[in-house]
Amino acid sequence: MHKEILNVIKIGGRVLDDQDQMENFMNQLSGINGAFLLVHGGGIRATQVCSQMGMETKMVEGRRITDAETLEVLVMVYAGLLNKQLTAGLQSRNFLAIGLCGADANLIRSEKRNTSKIAYGFVGDVHADSVNRSQLKRMLKEGWIPVFSPITHNGQGQLLNTNADTIASAIAIAMSKDYQVKLLYCFEKGGVLEDLNNEGSIMAELDRETYTLLNQRGAIHAGMIPKLENAFHSIQQGVSEVHIMHINQIKSFNESKHVGTRLVC
Amino acid sequence: MHKEILNVIKIGGRVLDDQDQMENFMNQLSGINGAFLLVHGGGIRATQVCSQMGMETKMVEGRRITDAETLEVLVMVYAGLLNKQLTAGLQSRNFLAIGLCGADANLIRSEKRNTSKIAYGFVGDVHADSVNRSQLKRMLKEGWIPVFSPITHNGQGQLLNTNADTIASAIAIAMSKDYQVKLLYCFEKGGVLEDLNNEGSIMAELDRETYTLLNQRGAIHAGMIPKLENAFHSIQQGVSEVHIMHINQIKSFNESKHVGTRLVC
Repeated sequence: MHKEILNVIKIGGRVLDDQDQMENFMNQLSGINGAFLLVHGGGIRATQVCSQMGMETKMVEGRRITDAETLEVLVMVYAGLLNKQLTAGLQSRNFLAIGLCGADANLIRSEKRNTSKIAYGFVGDVHADSVNRSQLKRMLKEGWIPVFSPITHNGQGQLLNTNADTIASAIAIAMSKDYQVKLLYCFEKGGVLEDLNNEGSIMAELDRETYTLLNQRGAIHAGMIPKLENAFHSIQQGVSEVHIMHINQIKSFNESKHVGTRLVC
Repeated sequence: MHKEILNVIKIGGRVLDDQDQMENFMNQLSGINGAFLLVHGGGIRATQVCSQMGMETKMVEGRRITDAETLEVLVMVYAGLLNKQLTAGLQSRNFLAIGLCGADANLIRSEKRNTSKIAYGFVGDVHADSVNRSQLKRMLKEGWIPVFSPITHNGQGQLLNTNADTIASAIAIAMSKDYQVKLLYCFEKGGVLEDLNNEGSIMAELDRETYTLLNQRGAIHAGMIPKLENAFHSIQQGVSEVHIMHINQIKSFNESKHVGTRLVC
């Protein structure tokens, strides 16, 4: 069976805060091949608002400790401010965007993280089965462009802070049953670097074996590790293509040029 | 042609902040007759967050002056925090709610208010033609329960702060072409009072003529005036019924009991 293309595009939080880059990104989307949906982060802005409200930000191993009042700020910043600004920006370019969190139409349910080691608070974990495929398909069939903020719910009325890279991966895997899914991690870097000290050393391709070797000798940026783990997992679970690229490269990608780093099994 | 019933339920900001009342309200929704959608306010919480962020709240004639940074807070609080908490709460009761602002699926476009007298800032005005009937109908046909926050957009990427009572009225009028619409303004009072100093003096019915007389002699609460103006306008424009009632009375209303104040032409 011939499957339609669905591009799952994750955009990083640092880029979201740069209006020129965001305008540039949105302008490139018109050339995209197939349907698409977006998943965004927003941690930098959330940290700013926490600080403005006199709240301290606590991070453990790159993850935000989410107490009740921090969760409120994250819901405000992710599902409110950034999500709706992005949606309005897309609408002004005639994309029929619809801003969402996981609670909307019950699209993504998560489980509150429960580890004995670290009290992460209101943090939710998702996997491909967390995604409500049938509801999401109905939205795509209506011609809407879902824009996901990284907030999910547990089905019992509790909103949960959820990693945006993982949401993108979970959606990509879930939808690969019905679509030929391309998962694009777009951020402010050109791809995965072979040499951390050389921004020009972008690897055109990266396979799991090479990644494992590079990671063992500390040559992978810490922030990149969960992204790459998600990415390799996605390929193994049926996602057609995974690319890590600069947000400015969508246009070249649409023109089938090789950009950024393509992950291969 | 027999039209399906659509209940457009506006819930006031003061009630949104009272968790017990909100739980009680959501529990009553299961008995509702026909389809429904919600429109919520949230001004009290927004004022609290503004104050926490060190921002002053300026009101002129009961309307919030919305400068750029105030708008950001309103989008966070209305379209983020309150909208998603409500949506998650509804999901936990198996209502397939979907939290929205006017930018989502291009549902409500507004025009930036442009008066010479008062610089309201980023405030948008809506009327029935502002509502994207076909998109909203598609959502209702999917079985989703739209939950509207009072944020709209101008189609050029600008979000705008919009009066929730007016949004409810605009939606009710727009949808009355396709549905038998009942517009319910639910808040923390039992209805329109005949005597401002007597909470028990709720009028069972109120017609425009009586309203005009009462208003002329200052017997209508200032905060009630725009609500009532919207309400009478809605009836004239095709909305079947308009009721002003306490949020706890939805169950009685569903059981066809007379509650609150019914507005008549």
